[in-house]
Amino acid sequence: MSPSPTDSMTLVAFLQAQNCSNLVASWRHPETRSDYMSAAYYQDIARILEHGKFHLAFFDDRLALPDRYGDSFRDVVENGVRAVKLDAASVLLTMGLATKRLGLGATYSTTYYEPFHVARVFATLDLLTEGRAAWNVVTSLNDSEALNFGHSAHLAHDLRYDRADEFLRVVQGHWSTWEEGAILGDKETGQFADSSRVHRLDHTGEWFKSRGPFTVPRSPQGHPVLIQAGQSGRGSDFAARWGDLVFVIYPDIEVARRSYAAFKNKVAAQGRDPRSVRIAPAVYAIVGESYAEAEDKKAAIDALVRPIDALALLSEALNFDLSRKRMDEPFSEEELQAVSGLRAILDRVITASGVKNPTLADFLHYSRRGTTDEFPTFVGSAGDIADQMEEWFTSGACDGFVLAATHMPGTYADFVLHVVPELQRRGLFHADYEGATLRENLGLSKPAAHEWKRAYGAH
Amino acid sequence: MSPSPTDSMTLVAFLQAQNCSNLVASWRHPETRSDYMSAAYYQDIARILEHGKFHLAFFDDRLALPDRYGDSFRDVVENGVRAVKLDAASVLLTMGLATKRLGLGATYSTTYYEPFHVARVFATLDLLTEGRAAWNVVTSLNDSEALNFGHSAHLAHDLRYDRADEFLRVVQGHWSTWEEGAILGDKETGQFADSSRVHRLDHTGEWFKSRGPFTVPRSPQGHPVLIQAGQSGRGSDFAARWGDLVFVIYPDIEVARRSYAAFKNKVAAQGRDPRSVRIAPAVYAIVGESYAEAEDKKAAIDALVRPIDALALLSEALNFDLSRKRMDEPFSEEELQAVSGLRAILDRVITASGVKNPTLADFLHYSRRGTTDEFPTFVGSAGDIADQMEEWFTSGACDGFVLAATHMPGTYADFVLHVVPELQRRGLFHADYEGATLRENLGLSKPAAHEWKRAYGAH
Repeated sequence: MSPSPTDSMTLVAFLQAQNCSNLVASWRHPETRSDYMSAAYYQDIARILEHGKFHLAFFDDRLALPDRYGDSFRDVVENGVRAVKLDAASVLLTMGLATKRLGLGATYSTTYYEPFHVARVFATLDLLTEGRAAWNVVTSLNDSEALNFGHSAHLAHDLRYDRADEFLRVVQGHWSTWEEGAILGDKETGQFADSSRVHRLDHTGEWFKSRGPFTVPRSPQGHPVLIQAGQSGRGSDFAARWGDLVFVIYPDIEVARRSYAAFKNKVAAQGRDPRSVRIAPAVYAIVGESYAEAEDKKAAIDALVRPIDALALLSEALNFDLSRKRMDEPFSEEELQAVSGLRAILDRVITASGVKNPTLADFLHYSRRGTTDEFPTFVGSAGDIADQMEEWFTSGACDGFVLAATHMPGTYADFVLHVVPELQRRGLFHADYEGATLRENLGLSKPAAHEWKRAYGAH
Repeated sequence: MSPSPTDSMTLVAFLQAQNCSNLVASWRHPETRSDYMSAAYYQDIARILEHGKFHLAFFDDRLALPDRYGDSFRDVVENGVRAVKLDAASVLLTMGLATKRLGLGATYSTTYYEPFHVARVFATLDLLTEGRAAWNVVTSLNDSEALNFGHSAHLAHDLRYDRADEFLRVVQGHWSTWEEGAILGDKETGQFADSSRVHRLDHTGEWFKSRGPFTVPRSPQGHPVLIQAGQSGRGSDFAARWGDLVFVIYPDIEVARRSYAAFKNKVAAQGRDPRSVRIAPAVYAIVGESYAEAEDKKAAIDALVRPIDALALLSEALNFDLSRKRMDEPFSEEELQAVSGLRAILDRVITASGVKNPTLADFLHYSRRGTTDEFPTFVGSAGDIADQMEEWFTSGACDGFVLAATHMPGTYADFVLHVVPELQRRGLFHADYEGATLRENLGLSKPAAHEWKRAYGAH
C-alpha cells in the first residue's frame, strides 16, 4: 500500500533550462544530450520523471550569464558555464504538455518582474497543466542580473526581501480575486459570472499598487504551489512564511537534522502547521551495478570539472568578483560584508572552515561549488543509495530530496530504473500519484480563496 | 503549382486567450466551446488552422478587464465581456507544441514589461517551436491596465512610442548578441562556444540600460517575426519602421486601397522594401451553403450582441469612460483630446460620421465596436467569400487577412473546410507551407545578426 503524501518521501528533479545541469561539467559528459534548446529534450526528461512518479520537475534560473568573475563573459562562454538560459516558464509548460501528473516548477524573480505578470503566468500554467504549476520565488542574486535590467547594482539583501514580501501579497491577492465557482457561463441567461464573487484587490503598498480584479479566474490548485530556497536570516524567515516546498542545501546529515528542526520551528512560529511545509535538500545520486562501479562513474564525472566552473559560479552566487583575490589571501571584514548574493554560502564556508576570514581557497574548498561534492552525493548500488536516503528521511533530516543531475538525462533514467523501485519496495516512496494536482500529491491543502481575501482585507 | 509566399495571400487567425473571441457575443453562441481555460481547446484550434495551412495564429491581449465603463467591473464580469485573459505567450506555446508549421504570435506590452524578459520569452518560444514565433508589439491602451501595474494613469500616446522604439532596439539587440553558429559544443576540446562571436549589448538609452550578452543564443528565425498594429500618427510610423506583419482595421475596400498604398509608401520612406511587410486587415467570414443561409447565420449571431459589449469595449479602447456621456451629447474638443487609447478609432468615427464633434451614438454607430460590422464581414457561400477576398487581395487593398471568429472554433472549422480549398483552387492561397519557419512561409528574409549588431553599434 502506498503511504500518504506527508508520510512519504517527496522527490524533485533539480533542472535547468540551459546547456548544462546544475553541474557545469555535465555538458562535457559523453552521454549528455546536446539538444537542450529543443522541446523534445525537455519532454523526454518529463516522461522519464513521470514514469518514476517524481512529484516535481523544478527549474532554477538567473537573469544573466555568470560573468561576475573578471567581469567578463569570455571564459564562461568558451567553457559552457551556464552560458545558455531559456525562459523557465516556457520550458515548464513544454514538459507539462507531455505529461499528466508530474508537478512543474519554475523560477521567476520578484526583483525584476511585476507581480501582475508573474501571477498571470503561473495561474495560466496552472490552468493549462490542470493544477500542476509551482513558482519558485527568488529575489535574484547579483549585479550581472541588475545590469541586464537597467540597474547598476543589485538591490541590498534585506530590501530585496521587503519587496518580495509585498510582491507575494500582491500575487496571492490576485489569485484570490475570483472565488471558486464564480463562473457560470450560462448561455441561456447570458450570465457569464457572478460578479459578487469577483473582487477588486486595491493593493497599495510601499513597492506596488495593483487594482484587480485579476484577469485569470481561480486555477485548479487555488494558488499554484510556492517553492522557496532562502536559507540565511531574512531569506529563511521568508521561506518559513511563504514556502509550501522549501529547497535547501545541507552539507551533511548532522547539519541537516539541526537545520531541519530549526526551520520547522520557524514555520510553527509563523503560525503554520510544520507538516504543511516540505523540506527537500539537493543531492546527487550516482548509481552503479556495484559500489565500485558507481565510484568509477563518479571519478569519470569529477574529471570533467574545470577550475573556471567553480570560480565563475562562486563569483556569481556571492556577487563578488573572485578574480580580485589570490588563492591564499583572506577576505577582509569589509569584503565579507560586500558579499550580497547567497549569504548561505558565506555562512557555510565560515562554519565549515572554522575561520572568520576565509581565503579564496577556503571558499572553493568548503563551498565545493561546481563539483559533485557541492551537495551530498549518494554513491553505490540502488540498495546503497536507498539506504542513505532512508537514513536521511527517517531520522528527521528532510521530507524528501531535490535530485541534481551529473549528466542529462542519464541521472534521471538511472535513478528511475534502479532506485525508485527500491524506495517503493521499502514503502518510502509512493507507488503512484495520489491525486491529480501537485498540491494533492504533496499532501498540501487548497487555499480557501475567500478566507485569504478576507485576511488580506481586500473588498 | 503553389504561388510564392509574397504573391500569395497571407492568412492569420485573430485569437484571444479568453472566454470569447474578438466578438464578445461569441461566448453566447450555442456552438462555442466553453473549455477556453484548457490546453485542449487551444490545441484543437491550432490543428484546425494548420490543416487549413493558415500562416499564423495570433493572440491579442490587454492587461486588465475592460472596466473603464462606469469604472466598474461588474457589468463586464456578469456579461462576459472579455472577462478572462490568460497569458498569451503560454497559450501560444500550447498551440505550437500541437503543430509543426503553423506560425504563432502573441501580444506583449512594451509599456509594462521589461525588454530583457520579452526578448527571452520570444527567443525561447522560437527555439521550442523551431522557428514559428512572432511577437505582437503593443504599447497598451488604458488606465485600467496602468492601475494593475502601479500607475494611476496611462502613459501619454507619444511617450509610449518613444519607450517602444527604444524597447525594440534593446530586444533586437539582445537577439543579435549571439552570432549564428557561435555554439560549437565540442566535448572533446571542452570548447562550448566561440566567445568572439558573442557580444555585449551595452545599451544605455533614455528608458533602458541593458548589458548582455543575452542568455539565449540565436533562434531559428534569427529574430522572431514582429507584428504591429499601429494605425494612427506615431503608431503608423512605428509599424512602418519595425513591423514584418501589420495588422490593420480597414472599414471598407476603398479606404483599404488608399490606406494600403499610403502605408507601403511609409515603409519605403523608412528605407525598407515595401514587399517585405505584409499588411492584413481584420475581417469576419460567415459561410453557408448559400448566401441566404449565411445571412441567417449572421442574423443569429448579431442577435447575441448586448449593448454593454460595445460600451465596455469602446470605453476600454478609447480610455474614456463613456458612462459619463448621454447618447446624443457631442464630445467637446477637450474630451476628444482626452482620448488616449486607440486614436485610430477616433479618426475613423470622425471621418465616417463627417462631424467634428461626434456623439456617443456616433461612436457606437461608426466604430461598430462589439458587433460583426466592426470589421468588413464576408458573407455567403464559399464562392461568394472567395470572390470578395480575391477582390481585396488583387486590387491592392491588402496582402492577406486576419480572420476574426464569430464563434469558436466553428468559424475556423467552416472556413478551412469550405473557403480554403476554393482560395487554393484559384491560386490565391498556398497549397502547403513553403518552408519550416514562419519567416519562410511569409517570404521574409532572415535578419543578419552580425550586420544588425554593426548597425546598432554594439561591440
